[in-house]
Amino acid sequence: MKVAILGGGQLARMMAMSGHRLGVETWVVDPKPDAPAAAVAHHVLGALDDPESWRAIADCEVATAELDHAPPEALTWLARRMPVRPGADAFAVAGDRLREKLLFRELGIATTAFAPVGSRGELEHAISQVGVPAVLKTRHEGYDGRGQRMIRAPEEASQAWQELGGEPSLLEGLVPFDREVSILAVRGPDGEVRFWSPVANHHEGGILRHSRPLAPGAEPDLEQAGQQAVAKVLEALDYVGVLAVEFFEVGGELMANEFACRVHNSGHWTEEGAETSQFENHVRAILGLPLGSTGWLGPTAMVNLIGSLPPREALLSLPNARVHLYGKTPAPGRKLGHVTLRASDDEGLDAALARLSRG
Amino acid sequence: MKVAILGGGQLARMMAMSGHRLGVETWVVDPKPDAPAAAVAHHVLGALDDPESWRAIADCEVATAELDHAPPEALTWLARRMPVRPGADAFAVAGDRLREKLLFRELGIATTAFAPVGSRGELEHAISQVGVPAVLKTRHEGYDGRGQRMIRAPEEASQAWQELGGEPSLLEGLVPFDREVSILAVRGPDGEVRFWSPVANHHEGGILRHSRPLAPGAEPDLEQAGQQAVAKVLEALDYVGVLAVEFFEVGGELMANEFACRVHNSGHWTEEGAETSQFENHVRAILGLPLGSTGWLGPTAMVNLIGSLPPREALLSLPNARVHLYGKTPAPGRKLGHVTLRASDDEGLDAALARLSRG
Repeated sequence: MKVAILGGGQLARMMAMSGHRLGVETWVVDPKPDAPAAAVAHHVLGALDDPESWRAIADCEVATAELDHAPPEALTWLARRMPVRPGADAFAVAGDRLREKLLFRELGIATTAFAPVGSRGELEHAISQVGVPAVLKTRHEGYDGRGQRMIRAPEEASQAWQELGGEPSLLEGLVPFDREVSILAVRGPDGEVRFWSPVANHHEGGILRHSRPLAPGAEPDLEQAGQQAVAKVLEALDYVGVLAVEFFEVGGELMANEFACRVHNSGHWTEEGAETSQFENHVRAILGLPLGSTGWLGPTAMVNLIGSLPPREALLSLPNARVHLYGKTPAPGRKLGHVTLRASDDEGLDAALARLSRG
Repeated sequence: MKVAILGGGQLARMMAMSGHRLGVETWVVDPKPDAPAAAVAHHVLGALDDPESWRAIADCEVATAELDHAPPEALTWLARRMPVRPGADAFAVAGDRLREKLLFRELGIATTAFAPVGSRGELEHAISQVGVPAVLKTRHEGYDGRGQRMIRAPEEASQAWQELGGEPSLLEGLVPFDREVSILAVRGPDGEVRFWSPVANHHEGGILRHSRPLAPGAEPDLEQAGQQAVAKVLEALDYVGVLAVEFFEVGGELMANEFACRVHNSGHWTEEGAETSQFENHVRAILGLPLGSTGWLGPTAMVNLIGSLPPREALLSLPNARVHLYGKTPAPGRKLGHVTLRASDDEGLDAALARLSRG
């Protein structure tokens, strides 16, 4: 069985490795010769929007992507030849912050206040609706904090608008959230859905720093509310594969922030902490294979390695840790790898996390 | 960091995948274009005894093997350019059943009765020493039941000798063992040693069918005796890497049968069942990196998939199972993959094993 992935980063790399175990071969399209997935997959060295690249994967059985902003023309071309999972619709919505929010609203899923901003003039109106502080975000191509400007007072609006280049945007109200939570699920072509445990996430500077899944049944109300919201999105998009929805938790309520139509950084813990990882279940789902159990195996936490790596000796001496490096050159803000910590109880995990954070 | 492996089978494949996670690149030498490791490592397509192949890996930092019978001339050539771990000595002993047994004897490790058989005449003498039933085994190149003939009565000696081609051999007494047990350990260049839980193995037709690690402390006397024996072998060979010693358990005593100077099929469970797998710790050890914890994570069992694979749907629908396929073409007696079963207790594991065995 042959799977094509648009993008050859660490997400594709981990999907390809899961694929090997299942007897699945992977082709990744990536313009970078040193793409992380190239070491473990067939590498189509080319641009994602180049028809030459598409032709090189034309005989795969199914195509997927590891990026939210997969070129629509690539998805369209591929969809004429093989299933593209999740579908072009899902990518179109996930790649457009406004459509994403409108979908949540349409499905009755709570979000923070937001308003579309198509012009400088509309920004005034949006501020009057949403209030300040708020964040102006471009509709397209934002990733991990790029394409965003904080507006603390109405007089900052002009500068923010200019800095974002006057692109179609939306304004989002800032919520003083208690916690960031993501819910990951996988859906098969037959509509079967499985959820992993909800994950509490900690971001700094717009980048995910660490994730920690909740024990099963630890917070049943939150789990149920989150799963209901995710199920609605899956259904609405007739989604196939792994979907990650990020929420703000405010006073015990979940407000949907955004979703990623791919495996997600906040699901990396599933490789060690769940019966079946997000990577394996995405591969299973898009190929129409039986989904694996998403059962929880015990307390785990995932810590990202960002910008630079600790000395290798120190990293490999961490107790209860499983190290995942992506084979990338260090650079500020770049995700170079992650560590999954395991413990027999929550206190042990707290201690391990504290140790790792101290470096 | 660059590691060279002689042999590109499933053992090399799983070492290479562990290597990727640690930021280690792997080169495998294998004459088969479809070698299982080729999908995840740099593949030197060539014979193991061809100097051309050796030159292709000459700039690696360390060399190892995934086979017991690595060509000595390859090890010698490589050892002049980089550390070969474990060393040529270890391969020489492990590749010769007589030297193996003599080493055990020299180290005071109990074995079954054995006697060298260099000629037809010596076979009579050996039978008088060892008794019947006994197994005549060639000293070299035996693997999973090949190069062996049972002798049930002295008059079967001639035929057995002829069938094995009159090669230098040894005669081993058959013991009515209660259980087959293997002990796996890893040793670093600094002499640090770590043991995984002892493993109970079940063979059929000379091929390992399933393995099940003992829970920590479940059988402390056996564990201690086995570890002492393995520690002696590690020390005697100044061994670096993962070593697997197979024992017969007879009336509560361990008798060493043979060892493999590489990662071993009876250690595949460590990928899911231990803090650090045998594959990762072998890579760590030969590179002189800190060894990872060999701690036990819970009840697991490993079942080999031999000869042919169950239908993919059935295989992927097994509960509590993690599937590892090697990308090999089915053939009688060929190891095509394995399944690791996990359960929260021994009874659950018994049930899962029974389910899988029924197919």
